[in-house]
Amino acid sequence: MHRTLSVASSPVRDLLALTSRPEVISFAGGLPAPELFDLDGVRAAYDRALRDRAVLQYAPTEGDPALRDLVSSRLTGRGLPTSDVLITTGSQQALALVATAMLGPGAVVAVEEPTYLAALQCFRMTGARIVPVESDADGLVPSSLRSVVATEKPGLLYLVPTFANPTGRTLSAERRVEIAEIAAAHDLWIVEDDPYGELRYRGSAVPPLASMSDRTIYLGSFSKVGAPGMRLGWLRAPADLLRTLTIVKQAADLHTSTVDQAAAAVYLADNDLDAHITRLCAEYGARRDAMLAALPATTPAGTTWSDPDGGMFVWLRLPGDADSAVLLKDALQHDVAFVPGAAFFATTPDHATLRLSFTANTVEEIGEGMARLAKVLL
Amino acid sequence: MHRTLSVASSPVRDLLALTSRPEVISFAGGLPAPELFDLDGVRAAYDRALRDRAVLQYAPTEGDPALRDLVSSRLTGRGLPTSDVLITTGSQQALALVATAMLGPGAVVAVEEPTYLAALQCFRMTGARIVPVESDADGLVPSSLRSVVATEKPGLLYLVPTFANPTGRTLSAERRVEIAEIAAAHDLWIVEDDPYGELRYRGSAVPPLASMSDRTIYLGSFSKVGAPGMRLGWLRAPADLLRTLTIVKQAADLHTSTVDQAAAAVYLADNDLDAHITRLCAEYGARRDAMLAALPATTPAGTTWSDPDGGMFVWLRLPGDADSAVLLKDALQHDVAFVPGAAFFATTPDHATLRLSFTANTVEEIGEGMARLAKVLL
Repeated sequence: MHRTLSVASSPVRDLLALTSRPEVISFAGGLPAPELFDLDGVRAAYDRALRDRAVLQYAPTEGDPALRDLVSSRLTGRGLPTSDVLITTGSQQALALVATAMLGPGAVVAVEEPTYLAALQCFRMTGARIVPVESDADGLVPSSLRSVVATEKPGLLYLVPTFANPTGRTLSAERRVEIAEIAAAHDLWIVEDDPYGELRYRGSAVPPLASMSDRTIYLGSFSKVGAPGMRLGWLRAPADLLRTLTIVKQAADLHTSTVDQAAAAVYLADNDLDAHITRLCAEYGARRDAMLAALPATTPAGTTWSDPDGGMFVWLRLPGDADSAVLLKDALQHDVAFVPGAAFFATTPDHATLRLSFTANTVEEIGEGMARLAKVLL
Repeated sequence: MHRTLSVASSPVRDLLALTSRPEVISFAGGLPAPELFDLDGVRAAYDRALRDRAVLQYAPTEGDPALRDLVSSRLTGRGLPTSDVLITTGSQQALALVATAMLGPGAVVAVEEPTYLAALQCFRMTGARIVPVESDADGLVPSSLRSVVATEKPGLLYLVPTFANPTGRTLSAERRVEIAEIAAAHDLWIVEDDPYGELRYRGSAVPPLASMSDRTIYLGSFSKVGAPGMRLGWLRAPADLLRTLTIVKQAADLHTSTVDQAAAAVYLADNDLDAHITRLCAEYGARRDAMLAALPATTPAGTTWSDPDGGMFVWLRLPGDADSAVLLKDALQHDVAFVPGAAFFATTPDHATLRLSFTANTVEEIGEGMARLAKVLL
C-alpha cells in the first residue's frame, strides 16, 4: 500500500557527473560534439518560430503537424514510407511510452545483449522480465532469437540495429529479413531504436527493420543529428498502436514543448539537414578513424573491439579476468574516462567489456586520451 | 504476454479538437489567454539563452541549476521554504512520475471528487484503485478523508487545493491543518497540485499544504503564469523521494528541454514575473466577474455554481436530471462549448455538472458566449 518504486540511477549519467572536471578527456558519454551544433541556424529557427504567439500555447499530443509532415517525409525519403509519426520528448520518452503501453508485471521483453542501458532501466521499471538475445559482429543472432522466442515467449524485442549502443555494430540485411520473419511468425513486436542511423561514415545504408515488418515500432531522434537539448524524438507505428501510444503520452506530459517543435519545423524547412549531417559524418568519421587507429597501441594483446561503420561507439573486450569498473577508477586518476560494460547487460554482465565514444572529442584530444588510457590498460 | 494497455483518451483534449472551429466560443479548455503571453519577453529570453552552445546539449536530469534556484527562491518567497526542486516536462509529467514511483496494481489512491481528469488518467494507467473523497465549497471534506483512510487505507491523496480544477474552489486554511494531521497520523502522502495558486483575484493567499506537512509532494507549473507551450513544471518533495523521482524521470525522458529551461531561467532573471502575474490577474479577474455576473441569466432556476477566488474555472450543477453531455451537442450547434462534468469523477459521475473556463475569452466574448449558452440551458 505504501509502495515506493525501488530504482537504480543510470551508471552512465552518474559517471557523467564524475567526468565533468575539465581536465578529464571523457570517452564515456554518448554526447554529440557541441562545436558542431548549428547554433546560429537553431537560434534563427527559434526566433522565427517565436513570431507566432501560438507556439506558447498548449498543443495537440500528437505533435506539431508541420514537424510530423517533415519527419514523415524524411523517413519516406530514406526508404521507410511513413504517413504519420508521434512526436516525443526525445526518443527516450518513446521507449517509456512503449514500456507503459506494452509491458508490465508478467510481460517478457527480449533485448539484444549488450544493449542501451536506459532501455533496460525503462523496461525494469514496469516489472517486466528481460531476457537477453545473443549478438555478434553482425548484430543480433537470429538462431538465438528463435531459441528465446520458443522458450521465453516474449511479446516485444528491443534492439538498436544500426550502429548499436553500446557496440557500434550493425545488423546485416540478411538477418533483418530473418528477424522480420520470426516476428511475423510469433506475434512478436519489434522496437527498432534508430538514433544513429544517419551517422554513417562508410558503406551504404541497410534497410530499416520497419520497412520489412509491420510489427515494428520505429524510434527516431533529433538528438544525434540536430541537438539533444531540444529533446525531440519521434515514433512510427501501425495506426492502432500509434493511437494508444498517443493516449499514453497525454498522461505522460500532455505534449512535447510547442516551442521546440515549432523551432525544429522551421529549422528543417529553412536549412539543409542532409548537408549538416554530411559535415557531421566527415568529422565524426575522422574521429572514429583516430580512435580505431590508436586502439592497437592502447590495449593489451588479446583485446578485441568492434569496427563501427557509423554512430558514436566502439566496444572493447579486454583479455583475461579484467574488470573495467576497477580500471575506470585508475583511468579517472589519469584524467580519462569510459563506461564499464557491465551495465549494458540484461542479466549476466561481462566485466571485461567497456564502451568508448569517439564523437565528443577532437582527433587531437582522442590521441591524448588514448595515450592516457594506454597507461591504464597496458 | 502480449498485453497492450487499454486506455481512454482525455475527453477534454478530444473536445478541444471539436471546438477548434473559429466561430466557436469555447469555455471548454483550461487555456491561458494567448494575447496575454509576454511573447516579446519570451522570445528575447530564448535568443539570449541560445547564445550559449551548452543549451543544445544533454543536461542533468534534475534540471537547469539556475532555473532550480530561481524556482526554489520563488517558492520560498511565497511562504514555502524550498532548497531544491526537480524540473519536469510540465506538471503533468510530475504527476506521471509520482504515479510510476508510488502506484501500481494493488495500490490505493484517494482523490478529491471531482478532480483533474488527467490525474485520474495517469493513476488509472498504473492499475491503482482510485477512491473518491467528498468536497464542498471549502474544498476536500476532512471527515470524508478520515472515513476513506480508515476503510480504504490509501497510500496517496491527490488534490488541487487552491482554485481547483474543475471546481475553482479553495481548501480552507483550517482544513489544510486538519488534512496535514491526518496525513501524519496515517502515513499518507499528499500530492498538492498547485498550477493556479498565483492567479488570485480577491482575498489573500492560503498557506500551501506542503508548508504544513513533510509528507507532501508539491507540484508547480510555468503553464498558467508563463506559457504552457514551454512545458515546464517542477516538483518539490523530501530529499529521498526527490532522488527516486529523479531516477524515474531519467527513464521517462532523460531530462526536460535544455533550451526551454535555459530560456525560462533567463526570463525569470531578466523580467518581473510578479508584475506580469498582476496584469494577468487584473484581466482574468474581470473575465471571472463577467462570467459570474452572466450566470443567473444563463442558467435555469435551481442551478448552483462555485464562486472562485482565482484560477480558471467555474463549476456548475444544473437542476433535475440534466445531462450536460447531451446539452454539449446542442451547445456546439450554437457555437459555444464547455466540458461536461462526468469525466472529472473517479467513480460515480454526476451528469448534471459542467465546467466553464473564463480565462481564454475576452469580457465581450464571454458575454456573447453566455448568451449562446442561455439558449441551450434555458
